[in-house]
Amino acid sequence: MNAFEVKNPDFESTIREKLKGQHFMHHIGFDLTEITAGKIVGEMDLTKKHMQQFGFVHGGVTATLMDITMGFAAYTLMPVGYGVVTANLSIDFLNPGDGDRIIAIGEVEKPGKKMVFCTAKIYTVKGEEMTQIASARSIMAVISRKRS
Amino acid sequence: MNAFEVKNPDFESTIREKLKGQHFMHHIGFDLTEITAGKIVGEMDLTKKHMQQFGFVHGGVTATLMDITMGFAAYTLMPVGYGVVTANLSIDFLNPGDGDRIIAIGEVEKPGKKMVFCTAKIYTVKGEEMTQIASARSIMAVISRKRS
Amino acid sequence: MNAFEVKNPDFESTIREKLKGQHFMHHIGFDLTEITAGKIVGEMDLTKKHMQQFGFVHGGVTATLMDITMGFAAYTLMPVGYGVVTANLSIDFLNPGDGDRIIAIGEVEKPGKKMVFCTAKIYTVKGEEMTQIASARSIMAVISRKRS
Amino acid sequence: MNAFEVKNPDFESTIREKLKGQHFMHHIGFDLTEITAGKIVGEMDLTKKHMQQFGFVHGGVTATLMDITMGFAAYTLMPVGYGVVTANLSIDFLNPGDGDRIIAIGEVEKPGKKMVFCTAKIYTVKGEEMTQIASARSIMAVISRKRS
Repeated sequence: MNAFEVKNPDFESTIREKLKGQHFMHHIGFDLTEITAGKIVGEMDLTKKHMQQFGFVHGGVTATLMDITMGFAAYTLMPVGYGVVTANLSIDFLNPGDGDRIIAIGEVEKPGKKMVFCTAKIYTVKGEEMTQIASARSIMAVISRKRS
Repeated sequence: MNAFEVKNPDFESTIREKLKGQHFMHHIGFDLTEITAGKIVGEMDLTKKHMQQFGFVHGGVTATLMDITMGFAAYTLMPVGYGVVTANLSIDFLNPGDGDRIIAIGEVEKPGKKMVFCTAKIYTVKGEEMTQIASARSIMAVISRKRS
Repeated sequence: MNAFEVKNPDFESTIREKLKGQHFMHHIGFDLTEITAGKIVGEMDLTKKHMQQFGFVHGGVTATLMDITMGFAAYTLMPVGYGVVTANLSIDFLNPGDGDRIIAIGEVEKPGKKMVFCTAKIYTVKGEEMTQIASARSIMAVISRKRS
Repeated sequence: MNAFEVKNPDFESTIREKLKGQHFMHHIGFDLTEITAGKIVGEMDLTKKHMQQFGFVHGGVTATLMDITMGFAAYTLMPVGYGVVTANLSIDFLNPGDGDRIIAIGEVEKPGKKMVFCTAKIYTVKGEEMTQIASARSIMAVISRKRS
């Protein structure tokens, strides 16, 4: 894994503060469990509300967790006064999402001044078994405070 | 727009029935307003729970509406006993999602026996103004009843 | 189709000049036939060198034509002193590329100061029949002359 | 890295045979240097014909090398009588392609009966320095001999 240059040493507390405004994240029940430079991990228990008609995790849940973990992974590397917005999110669904718990890992692949390239993986956990259900890539566009 | 071959003439009632099991769709508050061969439209009022920290529609909401409308657009063309699962979902976020209402349109671009290629557009409505906030493409994989 | 704001009225001659340096485009045998604000069309005859082992157009040829037509479509809207580089290119291959001639159409969907969102379609022509073989989306990143 | 199940023990010679028909690959000057189960590596010297107008590797070259290495990576895992065609190819361009030599690595992420999910990375080499210039994901659709 790369070691990234951190420009805001207080990125974790800045992100913890931002999370309060992540209404959709709270509506789903997702929370972050690891906030490190260029890498975000989050988890949640899967309940009926996360499902589609076949009893599998809804693709929208998977997409949401990817967007959140990659967006905040990019955010950990932003200077004070800068943020990111998602420009492109591309997801491959590898396996049906069947499980009791879901884990999302978002990571920065390559940071830049205008764009940050990220990757994400999503796993479901069923009993002792952990299965990767999706992989994604994203481009996060850097924005200055005026818009954030 | 293309005229597609319909293999299940009762696709609308089949989809209405399936929607009952779309727990995540109901959790968000989204519903379909138009179900025609190869095209699905849906809408919902935007409230605080759909937002991220900057007061814009969460990317996960946008992604969810795209997945649902493209998935069911593909579903309208399936023979009885067949369904679809999302294989790839690729979204470009064109503008910040700022508005009172959101409209999602999912359409089939090219149906096939194994894969259905779809496109989607998302708009927000603020007062009299309508803005396209995202465009997407997807590949829906055709599955037989065993999995659906 | 949208009417886009043109910032360099001489965009066509600027592009014609740039094309001289498109060595890979010439190596393939592709050329542009229409250069208008936000839209580029190009064509070429298909010969054995464009093929893969099944006798169909190579996916790399399709990808190249999409990259070129979308990149120059974005370029038509750049102010003097600015250019674009491809940030993301996402292609769906709808049908096998079987034909005597190939046509590529790249268009701007949404221009911006930092990023231009584009779409492309590729067709093959066999006798009287024209078939769409691929659709794509791209994000072109705007760069200033320093890099271009 | 995963250990994948090999169904055609002669996959390397089968691929070596197929390569003869890869006319576009030969036209570019690319060749494979490593053919193992689920992983393909290839390299070539960069010359003027691979460039665009800024003197960097053309995005179409990058896309072509990704399509080839991911396609053959998927092919290594096919049973006799089966092949693959690219369904989706999504590429992020991380850095300008500046160098004397280019290296492409394509790998299977998750094989399946109908679809194989792959990833690819492209590097340029300039003197002693190696730079990753692009990352990609693809979906390869499995086809039976009738079409291959």
